[in-house]
Amino acid sequence: MAISAAGGTSSDVVVVGLGVVGLVAAWRAARSGRTVTVLDPAAGTGATHAAAGMLAPVSETEFGEDDVLAINLASARAWPTFAADLEQASHRDVAFARTGSLQVAFDADDARELDRVVALQRSHGLDVTMLDAAGARRAEPLLGPRVAAAAHSPSDHQVDPRRVVEALLAALAAEGVTVLRRGLRRLTVEAAGRVAGLLDDDGHEHRAGTVVVAAGTATPALLTDLPDVVAPIRPVKGQILRLDATDLPWLAGERIVRGIVQGRRIYVVGRADGEVVVGATTEERSDAVVTAGGVFALLRDARALVPGIDEAPLVEQTARLRPATPDHLPLLGPTARDGLVLAAGHHRHGILQLAATSEAFDDLWAGREPAGHWRPADPSRFTTTRPATVQESA
Amino acid sequence: MAISAAGGTSSDVVVVGLGVVGLVAAWRAARSGRTVTVLDPAAGTGATHAAAGMLAPVSETEFGEDDVLAINLASARAWPTFAADLEQASHRDVAFARTGSLQVAFDADDARELDRVVALQRSHGLDVTMLDAAGARRAEPLLGPRVAAAAHSPSDHQVDPRRVVEALLAALAAEGVTVLRRGLRRLTVEAAGRVAGLLDDDGHEHRAGTVVVAAGTATPALLTDLPDVVAPIRPVKGQILRLDATDLPWLAGERIVRGIVQGRRIYVVGRADGEVVVGATTEERSDAVVTAGGVFALLRDARALVPGIDEAPLVEQTARLRPATPDHLPLLGPTARDGLVLAAGHHRHGILQLAATSEAFDDLWAGREPAGHWRPADPSRFTTTRPATVQESA
Repeated sequence: MAISAAGGTSSDVVVVGLGVVGLVAAWRAARSGRTVTVLDPAAGTGATHAAAGMLAPVSETEFGEDDVLAINLASARAWPTFAADLEQASHRDVAFARTGSLQVAFDADDARELDRVVALQRSHGLDVTMLDAAGARRAEPLLGPRVAAAAHSPSDHQVDPRRVVEALLAALAAEGVTVLRRGLRRLTVEAAGRVAGLLDDDGHEHRAGTVVVAAGTATPALLTDLPDVVAPIRPVKGQILRLDATDLPWLAGERIVRGIVQGRRIYVVGRADGEVVVGATTEERSDAVVTAGGVFALLRDARALVPGIDEAPLVEQTARLRPATPDHLPLLGPTARDGLVLAAGHHRHGILQLAATSEAFDDLWAGREPAGHWRPADPSRFTTTRPATVQESA
Repeated sequence: MAISAAGGTSSDVVVVGLGVVGLVAAWRAARSGRTVTVLDPAAGTGATHAAAGMLAPVSETEFGEDDVLAINLASARAWPTFAADLEQASHRDVAFARTGSLQVAFDADDARELDRVVALQRSHGLDVTMLDAAGARRAEPLLGPRVAAAAHSPSDHQVDPRRVVEALLAALAAEGVTVLRRGLRRLTVEAAGRVAGLLDDDGHEHRAGTVVVAAGTATPALLTDLPDVVAPIRPVKGQILRLDATDLPWLAGERIVRGIVQGRRIYVVGRADGEVVVGATTEERSDAVVTAGGVFALLRDARALVPGIDEAPLVEQTARLRPATPDHLPLLGPTARDGLVLAAGHHRHGILQLAATSEAFDDLWAGREPAGHWRPADPSRFTTTRPATVQESA
């Protein structure tokens, strides 16, 4: 990358948006030998900042979303290697933990729903053990007295998304990538229609062979000048709580309890450092405001499963917007516009799908076809125009 | 007041502790013509910071606490004049509002409890009107569908405690009182046993004819060197929430809804500026930590009465320690030690009892006997020694 006298830059790749997806796109581009510039007013403060970090490929998937599930399963398999590579590159701990998860059904109706989820998990070859109420309480002594059934999934893992952001920023720094704390004003489109860079909100131009837009729910607004690039990403609001069990040894520690409480999904994720994450609401709203009703609903359902959380200090409430597409698949890859790559719309699976997203970018930067599970995530699926191929070098 | 070269002071009165009680003690001392120095590392950040500011003399009183009730009733009567005087002296608005309150019973058992409370209120001459469920919803359209009974108390008022702190600080400034942001290391006791001032935590001495200790739950720790001054104040933890209804016109506005929900007390206080206060837990604990269980309990009971709060942004959770005595009466007045006045232990009534506390200090500084309702609050009641009389001038 070269910084011009006017404060602009010229690089092989510019990445807009530094949630985990943009960070990983930039890291893999730098690793491929490209010069990289990244822009975001505040890295890791979007949906990434809220995420709990469960790596549980099946339970958060809707029935019938087989294409989403295929990416989730591939990414869950890729996570151990991805976490190890990232920790090595960054010299940071991302708190990857082979926690296993306990799926808990609150009442008899929930138990029937759990049966369906477990059948789906087993049909995809996942190892799941059904437990009765007594077995569930042996597996997790913190469970409340009223639990209908449970299932143990030893292959579900977890990671701390905020530590992943720290590690990815460290990895970018180690590669010499320049991080600019600025937003994007507009993309630079050449006469032939090619996207050749962007103008930042300070008015500086950043030229690049490839521009990656990884701006989550802000993505559609950045593409309004390009009618042939259709990114139907809508915000799906989530509220999430963080408790501090540092001084409560019986509550502290690594665990994933995922529950179905009278048809509603809830999870309680505990980490080694004493953090306990309770999430998450799913609201078709575009404000990122913590509400009394959201906090109430989370606490009501979480304490139905794990009553002991009552004692824990409530240290953070966060609301963020998940970037969702109509089919709940990301928009990942080259677009109809030469020079423009999209990487957005990971919905509730941004952390889980990160390892597979990293692999997809390795393929992209190497000029290879991505793995088959990424084919349905083609960013041109909501347009009629077919994408150009990505440049192999810029 | 004179500031010595060493950073100490010499005044007629030194006040330790700047919650509302210490602030009013200092204001009235300054108004009496005395020189005044006040010390607190952070004014208004204790129990005062949490308080909702209801001026409802009966409903928060336990049956049988007639002495507490007498102070509450006298203070409620004194509040309009006190608020007007304070606003005039400070040129600040304290958001005193003649809101009236609606007492709401959730179920049939709660309705029987409400009957008892209303009978108590009427026996003290308060104006209360019983309403059936339909009448309650006419009086307050925000009430939820399940309300058993209600009672309207037109004479209950409210004030914003944080604005009262601002106004009292402005009134002190107008009187030329010096506010030192320091704590107390120890009281200065002369050979004859007289309290003659104090040493602050920077090691500076502040000499005074009268020292007023108004340090809430910290009061007992400041008196350990004086075995003949017994201040049995214990902390009673309260958690309280603040919502922001600024953008929710149907929820914003002045109201006091005080409920009994399955035996538990809850209140929802709305202000003209859109703030909605939901409180308060009562816990025999000495930590000031917001917990998941505390927040849950408040939201559960508040939304049982006013379901519309669900929509409101939750902007603050606060935990503070109320200073409670065994009989729930303050310790107010001169002590067994010459030169030492106590003003602490107002428990859950610090704001309500403030107007009467102001009158008590006017009497004290004028050398008059305080009004009869203050006699049971004699700070020497937990010791065997009788108090000295306060000096009329220092």
